Formats: sequence, structure tokens, C-alpha cells
Amino acid sequence: MSRFLCEKFSSLEAYTPGEQPQGMKYIKLNTNESPYPPSPKTIAAAGMEAEKLNLYSDPESKLLKQRLAERYGVKYENVFTSNGSDEILQFFFMAFCSERDVAYPSISYGFYPVYAELFGCKSTVIPLKDDFSVDSGDYEGINKNIVIANPNAPTGLCLTMAQVEKIVTSNPDNIVLIDEAYVDFGGDSCVELTKKYSNLVVCMTFSKSRSLAGGRLGFCFANEEIIKDLEKIKYSTNPYNVNRMTQACGVAAIEDDGYYMDNAQKIIKTREYLTEEYRKLGFYVLDSKANFIFAKHNSISGAEFYRELRACGILVRHFSKAEIKDFVRISVGTMEDIETLVIKTKEILSKRFV
Amino acid sequence: MSRFLCEKFSSLEAYTPGEQPQGMKYIKLNTNESPYPPSPKTIAAAGMEAEKLNLYSDPESKLLKQRLAERYGVKYENVFTSNGSDEILQFFFMAFCSERDVAYPSISYGFYPVYAELFGCKSTVIPLKDDFSVDSGDYEGINKNIVIANPNAPTGLCLTMAQVEKIVTSNPDNIVLIDEAYVDFGGDSCVELTKKYSNLVVCMTFSKSRSLAGGRLGFCFANEEIIKDLEKIKYSTNPYNVNRMTQACGVAAIEDDGYYMDNAQKIIKTREYLTEEYRKLGFYVLDSKANFIFAKHNSISGAEFYRELRACGILVRHFSKAEIKDFVRISVGTMEDIETLVIKTKEILSKRFV
Repeated sequence: MSRFLCEKFSSLEAYTPGEQPQGMKYIKLNTNESPYPPSPKTIAAAGMEAEKLNLYSDPESKLLKQRLAERYGVKYENVFTSNGSDEILQFFFMAFCSERDVAYPSISYGFYPVYAELFGCKSTVIPLKDDFSVDSGDYEGINKNIVIANPNAPTGLCLTMAQVEKIVTSNPDNIVLIDEAYVDFGGDSCVELTKKYSNLVVCMTFSKSRSLAGGRLGFCFANEEIIKDLEKIKYSTNPYNVNRMTQACGVAAIEDDGYYMDNAQKIIKTREYLTEEYRKLGFYVLDSKANFIFAKHNSISGAEFYRELRACGILVRHFSKAEIKDFVRISVGTMEDIETLVIKTKEILSKRFV
Repeated sequence: MSRFLCEKFSSLEAYTPGEQPQGMKYIKLNTNESPYPPSPKTIAAAGMEAEKLNLYSDPESKLLKQRLAERYGVKYENVFTSNGSDEILQFFFMAFCSERDVAYPSISYGFYPVYAELFGCKSTVIPLKDDFSVDSGDYEGINKNIVIANPNAPTGLCLTMAQVEKIVTSNPDNIVLIDEAYVDFGGDSCVELTKKYSNLVVCMTFSKSRSLAGGRLGFCFANEEIIKDLEKIKYSTNPYNVNRMTQACGVAAIEDDGYYMDNAQKIIKTREYLTEEYRKLGFYVLDSKANFIFAKHNSISGAEFYRELRACGILVRHFSKAEIKDFVRISVGTMEDIETLVIKTKEILSKRFV
């Protein structure tokens, strides 16, 4: 660090994103991207919009917000858009949690503790149950702000809408963020609850089911007053946060919703296939409702399995955290990629039994 | 505001961007955009990259940083890229100024005081001289962090490299940011000084001379340790801050540098024409080295002139701040647009003398 960095950031540990090899010689199953490209209409929208790049993007993302409001059955005033959903999380911690405690699960998206540290938020980190699920009872009436990924990452496990509702209603003086990045792969969305409760934010992304990870587009739904707070933070950090091309891609992607929701169904089928094959091979596989599975095998450590797969040209994600170090998280790719994965996995395991 | 917003943000006043009418029925001379579209190669790069949007962007922006390093004659390790240069300013205030005082001119980019307020930075706001120039002597040995736009906005006036160097060397224990958003229109760039001094950041943008305002791309040069600090903040807020399409456009724009630098020369010529015509009409026009002019006329208030131009279909920018309320800031458009502006201006003024 330079001698100018503020002391309070000296021990800050940044988030470590999954590897992004730019050469792409790997089967890349490590960052939960969609294996399917954007729809032709989405791609075309980017190219057309690029002709107007000399002009600033619409800081209000009007058209995109309209499309999102229509698609999700909410009002325009209840929608917020951002440069990836990470930006919404960042704004949430900054705006609401730097003077109020925030609670989140011990095993979840690795960025929550980073934001908490960055903005000096006092965190309550709540362990998962032994089966790696979130115990919703732990959050009921806790009287702190709450952030829960649902489905959770990297486990893929879900709370029901009823469980979330209980958390929200039992903490009326605190704000609850449900991070639904992976909801299109089988989870229960809580968007409807944002119409009923003024202390709930439901956050989503175009990075997973909508094949726009490289475009950076997130959005959330909440009470109008909360949206205004988020806008205030946006206009105090980066008013033109979403560029023109990404706004155009987002609009096109919503207009092509069928294409993307079909892809999500394909991914669900491939996930079920992978889960079944892995269980046959003796893996312990959690019941994922996301576009990844979380699996471990008694005969090989998580770190070793990660390394062996990498040596075979397949990238998956391993986390060194003690409670989950036996697992790897595997993004669900195309059926072809997953068949290759299964074959390579059999080879790796068979070597262990020789 | 919602009842959840942290108290410290209750009085925060966000930045107000210039109007962005999406219908485009105006001659838009209000937000210092380039009147020229991106080069065909830049546009094509966006379209091609859009096919890969299902994959995350390179969080390191490797290729883009390489091109910038080559173009500006610095090392790769001395380059940082961002979602618009606003993001660099944001990171700068967050990383370096929340525990150390920061000084900047009273009349300058309106976002500096917003960032200062957002991150709780103690600001010293230094008035301009009577001729609206920055008095570099005010900053020598001030022993605070310093942020200066050079050319300054909305005045368009410049400090020389020698003046900046004196500010940098006389404040060795503080960090100086020179915001060169408008430098390609005739200012003295201080990039060379970043090789010599470990306490200088020089920040630039693709939004002005490079016709990518809608793409959101900023960059800066500094000592390697400072760049590492900025990366740490980036990886703690939004690692994939620059999307794929914008990275590709940035690379293409640097490869097409001649196209953009020719456009900058055209804009300089048009600016000189506009300055001369306005002076003939009795305007007081500052000697701008940017892609805008800052002008006032004794016979009409700034607010009124803004309104009259708007009624003629021409958008310019007016600031309500007392010291500059007599002025309007006019972005330099195409020669055709500026000729229309001059004609309309004559009509507006002639009505006053009837």
C-alpha cells in the first residue's frame, strides 16, 4: 500500500473473483456464467447502440426500468438499475448498514464481509445449519439489517417465500436484502413481497440466467423511499453507472425473455443430470436450485479435486474456508461440457481406487 | 428518504448531471460530449464483443491497460481503468481523503464536494482569482491532499505543467490528483510527472475527446503503490467495473487514435471560431482550452440566456452558484451547430436592443 492510503483500509481484504483466463482454453465452470451466448437480438442491440456512444447514457435508465417493471409486475418507481448487482450490494451496505448492524450467513457470497469491512459496518455472522442450509429462525426478530442470498451461494440451497416473509415481518425496524442472483434456476422469488413490505429489497442480476455477465447489469425492487435512497447514493458516486450498450442489451434481453428462460430450463435439466451422475459416483451433492452444484467426495479433498480437474482442462471453484474446504462449486455448463466433466471425474476417482 | 438511510447521509446533496433529453430534438451543447461518433472500428468492436457477454469481463482490463501504457509512454503497472473517470474520483476520495484533508477550487467540477461529503472528508475550498483562474500559489505547501481539474471546468482555464509540478513537490506528504478530462483540447498534460513523483495521480476519460461518454471509461496514471491502492478499493467494491464492450471499445479507440485526435483538432478550431464570434457580440469569454466555452454578456443574465437558447432548441449549461451565475457553459459541437448557435444568439441579443 502507498503511504497515502487511509489507515482504516490497511487491513481491508478485497474480494477475490474466480479466475478469468482470457485465453479460454479451459472448460470454464468456475464463475457461474451462462454457457449460452446472448440472444441475437441482444447482440444486435449492443452494436446499434455503439453508434451513439459519444452521448452520455440515460442516467435514469428509463426504458430499461420500464421493461423490468412490466416483466416483474411492479411499478417503475420501485426499480433500480446498476453496474452489476455488486453495485447494489455496495450501495446497500454504504447507505443502510454503516450505522446499523447487519447480519448475514457465515457461508454465502464472499463479498458481504468485504462491503461490511469497507464501510465500517458491524456484522453479525450467523453459521449455517449442519446440512449447510440457512436457519431462517436465526434471523427472526434479530433486530439487525439482514442480507441473505436466496438461493444461497455456494450451496445452492433455498429459503421459501414464507420463511423470508417471517424474517421481514419480524424485523420491521430493519431492512432486509434478499439477493436473488440465482433465482431463475428454481428458487422462490420474493419480488411480490416488496409490494407488501417497506423494509425489503430484492436484488437480481443479468449475469446468470440472462447471459450478460460481461455486460454488468443488476437491478433491484423495493419500496419507493428505499429506491430514492439508492438513487441518492448513485447520484453521489456514479450517475451514469450503466453504459448505453448495457442498457440496450438489458432492454433487448427482457424483450427476448423466452430465449433466456428456456436456457434456464436447459441449465436446470443439466444440473439434475450432473447431480444424479455425481451421486452415483459417491459424491455428497447439495440440492441446488442455482446454476451450480456444491459437491464433495470422501476419497479426495476439495483442493485436490480442483487441481486434478484443472489439470484436465476444467476450471471449477474451490474455497479455502475451513467449513467448506472439502467441497468444490461447479457451474452448470452445456450438457456437452458436463458430460466431459463426468468422464474426467470418473478418471480422477478411478486413479484413487487403483 | 427512507427511515433506514444512515443519518450521516441525510443532508448529502447528490450531483446533478446536465439534462439528458432522450428524444434528442435539441442541439445538445450542455454536457461536453463530442459531436462526433466513435470511429467505425470502435463501433464494430462493441458489436463483436457482445457475442461473448455471457462471460465476465476481464477484471484486470489487461489489453486495454497495455494499449494505454503504450499510448502514454508509461508502464502497465502505472495504469488503472474504471467505469468512467467519476469512479476514479470516487475511489480517490474514499481511499485517500477520508482521514486527511483535501483542498480543491471553489469553482470546479461539481462532483468534488459531493465525494468529500459522501466519504466524510474535511475539505478546504479555495476561491479562484478574480479572472477565474486557479491560483497555483494557494496550493503550494498547503499540506493537504489536492484535487484540481486541469483544464478546469467550467472555466476551461489551465495551469502549466511547471505550476502543477510546484504544487506536487511542495506537498510531498500529500497526494495530488490532476483531473485531465479535457486535456486533449489544448492543455498541458502532466502524465510525464507521474514517472517522477510518487504523490501524483493524473486522471483522464474516454468521454470527451474519444467520443465514448455513453461507454463509461476512465483511466489514470500514478505510482505503482497508488495504483495498487486503487485496485484494492476496486476489488472491494466492483471488481468487474468495466464491462466487456467498453473494454473492447477502449482498445479500438486507442488503436484509432488518429481519428480521435483529428476530431479534437476540429473541436479546437470550432471553439476558436465560437470564441471570436461571441467576443464580437460583446460576450466576455474565458480563454478555454477545453471542449466548451464559458461566457457571459452584460445585457442578459446567465439564467435568461440559458432559457432563451433552450426555447430556440439549443441546450447549454447554467450553474446557479453566485460567483458564476452570469455565465453559461457551452459545449463545442460541430461547426454547423455552432453556426446555428451564433445566429440564434444574435437574434436573442437583438431583441434586447430593440
